[in-house]
Amino acid sequence: MTTTIKAAHYRGNKTFTVETMEAPAPAKGEVAVRIAFCGICGTDMHVFHGNMDGRVGFERVIGHEMSGTVASVGEGVTNVSVGEKVVVRPLDHCGNCPACDAGHQHICHNLKFLGLDTNGAMQEIWNVPAHTLHVLPNDMRMDHAALIEPVAVACHDIRLSGLKPGEDVLVIGGGPIGILCAMVARDAGGNVVISEVNTYRLAIAQAMGFDTINPVEADLPNTINERTSGKGADVVFEVSGTQPGVDAMTACAATRARIVMVAIHAQKPQIDLFQFFWRELKLIGARVYEPEDYEKAIQLVVSGAIDSERVITDVSPLEDIQQAFESLDNSPTAMKSLIKVGEDA
Amino acid sequence: MTTTIKAAHYRGNKTFTVETMEAPAPAKGEVAVRIAFCGICGTDMHVFHGNMDGRVGFERVIGHEMSGTVASVGEGVTNVSVGEKVVVRPLDHCGNCPACDAGHQHICHNLKFLGLDTNGAMQEIWNVPAHTLHVLPNDMRMDHAALIEPVAVACHDIRLSGLKPGEDVLVIGGGPIGILCAMVARDAGGNVVISEVNTYRLAIAQAMGFDTINPVEADLPNTINERTSGKGADVVFEVSGTQPGVDAMTACAATRARIVMVAIHAQKPQIDLFQFFWRELKLIGARVYEPEDYEKAIQLVVSGAIDSERVITDVSPLEDIQQAFESLDNSPTAMKSLIKVGEDA
Repeated sequence: MTTTIKAAHYRGNKTFTVETMEAPAPAKGEVAVRIAFCGICGTDMHVFHGNMDGRVGFERVIGHEMSGTVASVGEGVTNVSVGEKVVVRPLDHCGNCPACDAGHQHICHNLKFLGLDTNGAMQEIWNVPAHTLHVLPNDMRMDHAALIEPVAVACHDIRLSGLKPGEDVLVIGGGPIGILCAMVARDAGGNVVISEVNTYRLAIAQAMGFDTINPVEADLPNTINERTSGKGADVVFEVSGTQPGVDAMTACAATRARIVMVAIHAQKPQIDLFQFFWRELKLIGARVYEPEDYEKAIQLVVSGAIDSERVITDVSPLEDIQQAFESLDNSPTAMKSLIKVGEDA
Repeated sequence: MTTTIKAAHYRGNKTFTVETMEAPAPAKGEVAVRIAFCGICGTDMHVFHGNMDGRVGFERVIGHEMSGTVASVGEGVTNVSVGEKVVVRPLDHCGNCPACDAGHQHICHNLKFLGLDTNGAMQEIWNVPAHTLHVLPNDMRMDHAALIEPVAVACHDIRLSGLKPGEDVLVIGGGPIGILCAMVARDAGGNVVISEVNTYRLAIAQAMGFDTINPVEADLPNTINERTSGKGADVVFEVSGTQPGVDAMTACAATRARIVMVAIHAQKPQIDLFQFFWRELKLIGARVYEPEDYEKAIQLVVSGAIDSERVITDVSPLEDIQQAFESLDNSPTAMKSLIKVGEDA
């Protein structure tokens, strides 16, 4: 039996095509997931801009911020059942490198990121390794569930920071990941303030109940010092990916502060290493997530600690994926855009 | 009763004068220490070069890497007795700042470093706050004991790294502090290799039993990967204070490696933050020491884990301090130069 599905292919030159194709049956150890929603990640936008053509090619179905239900299972799969709601943790490790040996499978030297290095979730049926699945509660809203992947990024960041209740937290950069870091840090008991230069994003952050600072208008280190009686921020999340953000991360930090490097810096910024020495700062690199971060993210989306209604700013059907990417690319106010992939999602 | 002592004063312009003066009696809470030996620190050499004139002025007795015996105690002092061998942990904190409140007295916002911000140990009698003293075993060699302060720096660095036995360690920079870090890391069970460009220092490190790499002759990251089967170094100590050292610290690091920033970088180097993200690296700023690092350092100097005989390359009497600084400044082979301050040391 074959199943005809719709799938969106990235064709280069800022173009997607939506075509019908036959869905292959899940292979041994695989699960066929019927996709409900798939969010557009910043990385997907990099693909759209042509920055990752060498990696993804021109026949790729991208997408990894998804929710879905198990459609069928391949031979030997026992951890999920048909009909269960699931999300995919889109990491496939080699099992045979120094990182895997050390138990750091999520940063495997030969990591495959599903939806970039393999086909992804912008199609009605997605076959994935069974070990990548996390089962959701039966009554979970599937649009909200599409936030679990980016929320898991934030959960990883907050977990690696060692944030304790009552600590002062500075999030530098109020885009989607910055906002999710702020929400997860707030749930963990942090006194959170967000630094952001985009006035639209500042308004969104304020509507979500956060204190904000616009470093173009106020001196950021002075403001942080005033808020903390001269102590500085105990935990800093650098999510801006900019040199001013990197300057602020050291200038605003308390003694022995932990600075989590969430942003991906393609350039090599200058860093105030003297301040690392002087205040015994710690810089913590963080990449994707581990299984426990997914479990935490599911819990936070279910509990409402993540304000899903405000984070999701657009939903478009799969047929309109081209327009959805173009709109998101030009929108100063959008946070998270979802693609509604499944007809019955 | 007054005591006439000799003291070396820094007078600016690369000049010390040795003069006699009356030693004041120790004030309440102070201890008068009769100095045996005092090592010349890299910081003292910065003073000699005039780089710290604004901080130390032209009447300062410098010196803080010392050993001595208790000569007399001021009112209320109960933690040491006359005649005991001691070393000074030369840090005086304010007790009333966010760092002190958080228990980080060694990086107090208003820290006084004894021997820079106050007079130091290049004099026969040095009055210090009683809380700065650590008592030594009776039979300890006082020349070796003058190494305890820099060894405590290394103990702090290794402790903050969380080094575990069997881990691969790279020390970038084989000067005095690099060598001491290597010795403390070796004692902690690390598989240590030292990267150094100075051929004299390479020879000294080899004589001390260390594997070495000259990054001018060999590709450092490739060599580390070969030594570690492609894994990289688990712990890296950046002691070079150079941009190539900063480049190497990320290029040689294993997944989740800990990089300890030992060097004081006056400039802001460029750092490969992408590698921090990609391999989830951790950068740990480390400054001076805490009491437990002193206790560990005493133990390591006593046990012989520190090869004191090879580390101490010169000893000069206090009268020859000028020549001692000039010699050290021009020597490519010197490691640690001591000033023999006490006549009977």
